[in-house]
Amino acid sequence: MVSSSVSLSDIANGDLPGQQVELGREQPLKLDCGIEFGPFTIAYQTYGALNADRSNSVLVCHALTGDQFAADQHPVTGRAGWWDIMIGPGKVIDTDRFFVICSNVLGGCLGTTGPASIDPATQKPYGLNFPVITIGDMVRAQTMLIDHLGIDQLFCVIGGSMGAMQVLEWASKFGDRVFAAVPIAGAPRHSAQNIAFHEVGRQAIMADPDWCQGDYLSQGKRPRRGLAVARMEAHITYLSEAALHRKFGRRLQEREAVTYGFDADFEVESYLRHQGSSFVDRFDPNAYLYITRAMDYFDMAGEHDGVLGNAFRDTKVRYCLVSFSSDWLYPTSESRTVVHALNAVAANVSFIEIQTDKGHDAFLLDEPELHKTLSGFIDGAARHRGLS
Amino acid sequence: MVSSSVSLSDIANGDLPGQQVELGREQPLKLDCGIEFGPFTIAYQTYGALNADRSNSVLVCHALTGDQFAADQHPVTGRAGWWDIMIGPGKVIDTDRFFVICSNVLGGCLGTTGPASIDPATQKPYGLNFPVITIGDMVRAQTMLIDHLGIDQLFCVIGGSMGAMQVLEWASKFGDRVFAAVPIAGAPRHSAQNIAFHEVGRQAIMADPDWCQGDYLSQGKRPRRGLAVARMEAHITYLSEAALHRKFGRRLQEREAVTYGFDADFEVESYLRHQGSSFVDRFDPNAYLYITRAMDYFDMAGEHDGVLGNAFRDTKVRYCLVSFSSDWLYPTSESRTVVHALNAVAANVSFIEIQTDKGHDAFLLDEPELHKTLSGFIDGAARHRGLS
Repeated sequence: MVSSSVSLSDIANGDLPGQQVELGREQPLKLDCGIEFGPFTIAYQTYGALNADRSNSVLVCHALTGDQFAADQHPVTGRAGWWDIMIGPGKVIDTDRFFVICSNVLGGCLGTTGPASIDPATQKPYGLNFPVITIGDMVRAQTMLIDHLGIDQLFCVIGGSMGAMQVLEWASKFGDRVFAAVPIAGAPRHSAQNIAFHEVGRQAIMADPDWCQGDYLSQGKRPRRGLAVARMEAHITYLSEAALHRKFGRRLQEREAVTYGFDADFEVESYLRHQGSSFVDRFDPNAYLYITRAMDYFDMAGEHDGVLGNAFRDTKVRYCLVSFSSDWLYPTSESRTVVHALNAVAANVSFIEIQTDKGHDAFLLDEPELHKTLSGFIDGAARHRGLS
Repeated sequence: MVSSSVSLSDIANGDLPGQQVELGREQPLKLDCGIEFGPFTIAYQTYGALNADRSNSVLVCHALTGDQFAADQHPVTGRAGWWDIMIGPGKVIDTDRFFVICSNVLGGCLGTTGPASIDPATQKPYGLNFPVITIGDMVRAQTMLIDHLGIDQLFCVIGGSMGAMQVLEWASKFGDRVFAAVPIAGAPRHSAQNIAFHEVGRQAIMADPDWCQGDYLSQGKRPRRGLAVARMEAHITYLSEAALHRKFGRRLQEREAVTYGFDADFEVESYLRHQGSSFVDRFDPNAYLYITRAMDYFDMAGEHDGVLGNAFRDTKVRYCLVSFSSDWLYPTSESRTVVHALNAVAANVSFIEIQTDKGHDAFLLDEPELHKTLSGFIDGAARHRGLS
């Protein structure tokens, strides 16, 4: 593996490995906020080959800080793709059988148009002039990509965390274009606690004077410390108390005794500081604001007079929901709410809560029960779809 | 109730209602970090009267952001004391029967010497020259106050959260000076997750350029935004997901629909912002760093070769531990660990987990089961102590 080769500003200037497509030039994207948006760019990666009748595609939806490089090297960090463990020849999402698509979400910072992109109207970065987007907007942008790729129906839409929200949105709004849906560690709406944690992260970014009211790119600055604090806070919510205890406990960082100071005496402090400082190199602070806001606005029942089942009425999609017992960010109760709503409309749904102490991030990790569950569901769905 | 009359800087200059005493002039306080510290001031409040044989005193230990004004008006905010619900004539801690003492902890910012106080050696605020203190140091400073008040043995030491840590420390190190101990919603050590949340708060403060490397007081500045972010984050941990849902859900703040922006659309955002901004008027940012550090360093078993029971060997103190079912900051398992250790040394201990959805902050709230439990324990202990 080589070291990183491009920076976020290279990417904002269009210097990005992988595929990009301009969409919405003739027919702009109608955003939930009312704005007609376009043209815009979607950056995406594909793995495997589309079969003759275009029926074997799997859309992988990424989480808040994920990106399209699900199964190949990240262009900035040089690290393996965030779902490399799941996608590849012979893996759970088998690229020998499936045509896998993963696109950077609208509002993102890795090639898809977002607040760090150049606004054609001003030739300067959008900054806070970027419209506030929703999970629904992200998904409608993805439908335009799927149209561009000439695919009528996706065999499967799958993703964890914010990815699961996109999966649910796909199944609800574009059910005839989805054969199977796999929302992992997700929720049908953002809870008060979820919103609260996001708001603290946003305030940390906006409190940094280098944020410059969102105009840091034009002013040659970058709210590094604010974004690092936001990431540190969020990272705690991705793990469980048990996982933190197992990984770190109260162990000291390369020292025999506490130093009676504010250095990182404890391993967990050192780990969190590293999580914060490494994140700022690969993520745009305004993108963090916009994407967390999109998640906060997500409320499927709210869009349907408070009745979640109405979001899935007459659905023909096959669902497999997965939650993790130690996930306190999107706890099992959230997935169960979706399952009950799907049951109420007689949907084809299976659900498993996987026992693990790894917390929310378990969907990214080597969790054998998760892999076994997904393999079984995908194989079964593929048989029903007539895919060998 | 009148509005606030003094500011934090008035207090740092010695303009504070209530009682203060200078201690450690002849015999300095030996801190855990090795420094001999003194003279220093302890600010405290008392309620009720000491009886003839000086056997009816109750020491109330405050939490991270608490202070000595447990049962009377806060001099800065003008609000009622933080445990006004618990302390007073005829209340659970009955000032008609008991002599109640509550002192601001060492390192605090409401009259007791802390990082905002003037360092006699330089005639400037201590700032980061203040020594890093521990829960043990706080308690040893309190013993000097109790000596000053002419009290050999406290009838009861009681407190929640960080107050519970002080209670445990009192019982462990000064067991012959404590008849009964009531640690509420506490823990015998800070967990990795506890340390992690504190570290995020500290980083938020230290990331604020107005922190000035801790020297903001000399430079006429104040890291308001950093401290507000730290408080917002911490405040989430004091509540439960259920309490946040009950109080706020996804309700919007004085608007019919979301605004597609970064204003506080949701009530929970508005509430958190208020928690953050109101906190900075009553709390010193460096004191927040020092007191969170003291909590992180707390590890009773660690001081006793990893065997918590050894911290309480031969204890004659009567214990009543209380935890709250929805407290995820100091969950019931932490109190249970203490109970098991006390059982192992055949201590006189009672323990109750109170069923509530109010989270960690339940110890501050009108929680009838808590009040009934404490009344029962305190009455029984008073009878055994020969107090009418």
